[in-house]
Amino acid sequence: MAGLKRRHVLDLDDFSPAEITQVLDAAREMKEVLARPIKRVPALRGKTVVNMFYEASTRTRVSFELAAKNLSADVVNVTASGSSVEKGESIVDTMKTFEALGADTVVIRHAQSGVPYLAAAHTSSSVINAGDGWHAHPTQALLDLFTIREHIGHLDGLSVVIVGDVLHSRVARSDIWGLVKMGARVTLCAPHSLLPDVGDGCGDGPICTCGTHLPRVRVEPDADRAVEGADVVMALRMQKERQSGGLLPSLREYVRRYQITQARVARAKPGALVMHPGPMNEGIEIAPDVAHGAQSVIEQQVTNGVAVRMALLYLLHGEGDGAL
Amino acid sequence: MAGLKRRHVLDLDDFSPAEITQVLDAAREMKEVLARPIKRVPALRGKTVVNMFYEASTRTRVSFELAAKNLSADVVNVTASGSSVEKGESIVDTMKTFEALGADTVVIRHAQSGVPYLAAAHTSSSVINAGDGWHAHPTQALLDLFTIREHIGHLDGLSVVIVGDVLHSRVARSDIWGLVKMGARVTLCAPHSLLPDVGDGCGDGPICTCGTHLPRVRVEPDADRAVEGADVVMALRMQKERQSGGLLPSLREYVRRYQITQARVARAKPGALVMHPGPMNEGIEIAPDVAHGAQSVIEQQVTNGVAVRMALLYLLHGEGDGAL
Amino acid sequence: MAGLKRRHVLDLDDFSPAEITQVLDAAREMKEVLARPIKRVPALRGKTVVNMFYEASTRTRVSFELAAKNLSADVVNVTASGSSVEKGESIVDTMKTFEALGADTVVIRHAQSGVPYLAAAHTSSSVINAGDGWHAHPTQALLDLFTIREHIGHLDGLSVVIVGDVLHSRVARSDIWGLVKMGARVTLCAPHSLLPDVGDGCGDGPICTCGTHLPRVRVEPDADRAVEGADVVMALRMQKERQSGGLLPSLREYVRRYQITQARVARAKPGALVMHPGPMNEGIEIAPDVAHGAQSVIEQQVTNGVAVRMALLYLLHGEGDGAL
Repeated sequence: MAGLKRRHVLDLDDFSPAEITQVLDAAREMKEVLARPIKRVPALRGKTVVNMFYEASTRTRVSFELAAKNLSADVVNVTASGSSVEKGESIVDTMKTFEALGADTVVIRHAQSGVPYLAAAHTSSSVINAGDGWHAHPTQALLDLFTIREHIGHLDGLSVVIVGDVLHSRVARSDIWGLVKMGARVTLCAPHSLLPDVGDGCGDGPICTCGTHLPRVRVEPDADRAVEGADVVMALRMQKERQSGGLLPSLREYVRRYQITQARVARAKPGALVMHPGPMNEGIEIAPDVAHGAQSVIEQQVTNGVAVRMALLYLLHGEGDGAL
Repeated sequence: MAGLKRRHVLDLDDFSPAEITQVLDAAREMKEVLARPIKRVPALRGKTVVNMFYEASTRTRVSFELAAKNLSADVVNVTASGSSVEKGESIVDTMKTFEALGADTVVIRHAQSGVPYLAAAHTSSSVINAGDGWHAHPTQALLDLFTIREHIGHLDGLSVVIVGDVLHSRVARSDIWGLVKMGARVTLCAPHSLLPDVGDGCGDGPICTCGTHLPRVRVEPDADRAVEGADVVMALRMQKERQSGGLLPSLREYVRRYQITQARVARAKPGALVMHPGPMNEGIEIAPDVAHGAQSVIEQQVTNGVAVRMALLYLLHGEGDGAL
Repeated sequence: MAGLKRRHVLDLDDFSPAEITQVLDAAREMKEVLARPIKRVPALRGKTVVNMFYEASTRTRVSFELAAKNLSADVVNVTASGSSVEKGESIVDTMKTFEALGADTVVIRHAQSGVPYLAAAHTSSSVINAGDGWHAHPTQALLDLFTIREHIGHLDGLSVVIVGDVLHSRVARSDIWGLVKMGARVTLCAPHSLLPDVGDGCGDGPICTCGTHLPRVRVEPDADRAVEGADVVMALRMQKERQSGGLLPSLREYVRRYQITQARVARAKPGALVMHPGPMNEGIEIAPDVAHGAQSVIEQQVTNGVAVRMALLYLLHGEGDGAL
């Protein structure tokens, strides 16, 4: 397996469709490893992955930790509390320290947008963005792409509807980049107060070439119309504090207008996939029977996350000679 | 070694004597592994143990971590702080996530009684209760049984006295179940305010068959009389906040009436074992010279805890074909 | 490789020059291991290292963790929060627990001076002091010695200037012991309020034989004069809270008088090494262009820390028969 021709994974906006396909293909092989009785390969033996989570997380942190361990890498967990951040050490100094300590890859989750970029600019270790502020969450997007492709067989030409708080969602931003690059059409559905300014892009087709716009996507504020004929319906987590922040008229009104219900799923294509990045607020953005229904692939997203992160760690490391 | 015919270890109340014996026998083999220069066997290679400790703990958490590592399993530690619990994620969702991430066993410590049961009902991973509220601590009870059997050779017919705050002790509850099932007689000794209502059970012999009562045990509030002729004297940790809670007249009075002293140990059988689940308040529930005296097996309890947890992880996994 | 004839590493004051040389020689071999594509040797397989960090740390904690993992040991991390310390358990009881759990080595970082000594007195595990209060940080001193020797080839006869808050620096204390023992001359440079009372020792030559004095060192409060002709210039971290504590006239004044600048480095020997234990306050105790300049070996100190800690873990374990 040839490695990626990049050192960092910061967002999908600079991934080519070929690169995305390369990751998804490698993840398919990793998923086969996960199906073995002993789900462990020696590919990254002696390599060090630093898991630097400066924001609360269970699923993503554990997913990266298990991905690294399945590849026989050593994993070191670092959180903000108990670290030198408490002494006021900067991210740049922390990165230089990890590099000097021998970190091959540093996985970063941070509440501030852009921190993984700052980190990547000051280290020769590989940096993987595990979620930065409202900005990007590329490994979540890759696992979403993987899950869709696994079920439907391709991404090109699909209609994907993302419903909910797009404005504050790093998942949505990265998903939009990945989906549009792979030829899918994206519809956003949310109250205006929870939508980013998608504008007109730079006028260079669906994908901005000036580097400052999200790809052009359709906006449809009416959830019933938005999901019509969709191949995939993705609900986003609604942070309850948005209501107190004045961005929502009321949670009850939000539920009535935007919750993914059986009735709404029935307006999508037969067998359309229901997705959610988790953790879910069941009964708010998604009805419990839909969350656990036959069309839900939400738990498979979690499992696929391990495979996709294994693929990235493996491809970034780029040796390409380890047997699986 | 054949595996256990169960998926979870939640308390000893549903263990048969044969199952308990099976665990203790396996723990004896594990203790032999611990005595080797390289105390590591490949039995659980590629398996994942999630150590989910939502309450402060050193000895139990580290004991499970080392038990899993000695068996070559991968261990992931999760605490409440820094996890998605902070985002309000439910235990049920957390368990589904761990299952999807590939957890084979989830070890749970939680301040609320019953949480491991809730968790077990919503996952196909194995759940081991590492202490839930005041309710149960079955692995502590198993290591206590192991330690007694190791020293005396059997459990049947022994007289075991448990002195101290039984009311708030999950250790005492699980010990009572285990001891009575294995044919030992249990005497509880504490102020009335620190005793649970042991009542009359359901009238079906020492072990309740209706599932709502503790086994029938003897209560003897006078410590001097309680320890008379005992094979084992077990002191429980006295939480100092019980006094401010009004459950104790004074700590000084408690010490005078219930502390395990040399004089009291002298009233038990010659060579009677002195036990304590730790951490001890030396000078409160136990005199320092007794805690570190010739009859104390308190440190051996800690060592045996690793062996017992190795045995459980191994037997739950149930492959039965791994060489040790 | 023969092991060390000691069980603990608490400070360098009781190390002989031969022992220090033994550690530095072993670290050189470990650094060769770090240069391999797979930086992992099986020397400590099945051994357990407990990393007990009761004070914030990233670099030292991760350095020990990676050192242990590179040697194939199992590592268990313990912090004060989430541990039984919260239940009031004493260090002595915690050490007895770790010993009973099978810890071969316990690495201790603690805000109170002397805690590792207390710990060592109550355990048969090996104890390594990873920094205790203002008192000692012997592994930092060993990596400093290693880094100097690696660059200059020897330690004997060198002139080493330590500039900054020596009073509150455990690094400085341990460096002084190590440097003087290896035949280097040490000059301390700081405001009087940040200097310990170096006094006259016990009058028994540069190294005190009564055990209560630091070795005799030169004090030169003028930074320009202090660095003249030095082989090594080491800056210490300035804790900003010292100013509010009244120990500094002003930070600006401190910077003017004590910051390690290019001009000051130019007064040292040509090619003199610039060192700092990290984390740095760039622009306070050290100028950014010096910190990242050609004479800085600050990042190499971090890398060498892993090698030195591997050497200590290996030598303490003392088997001396594991191939590297």
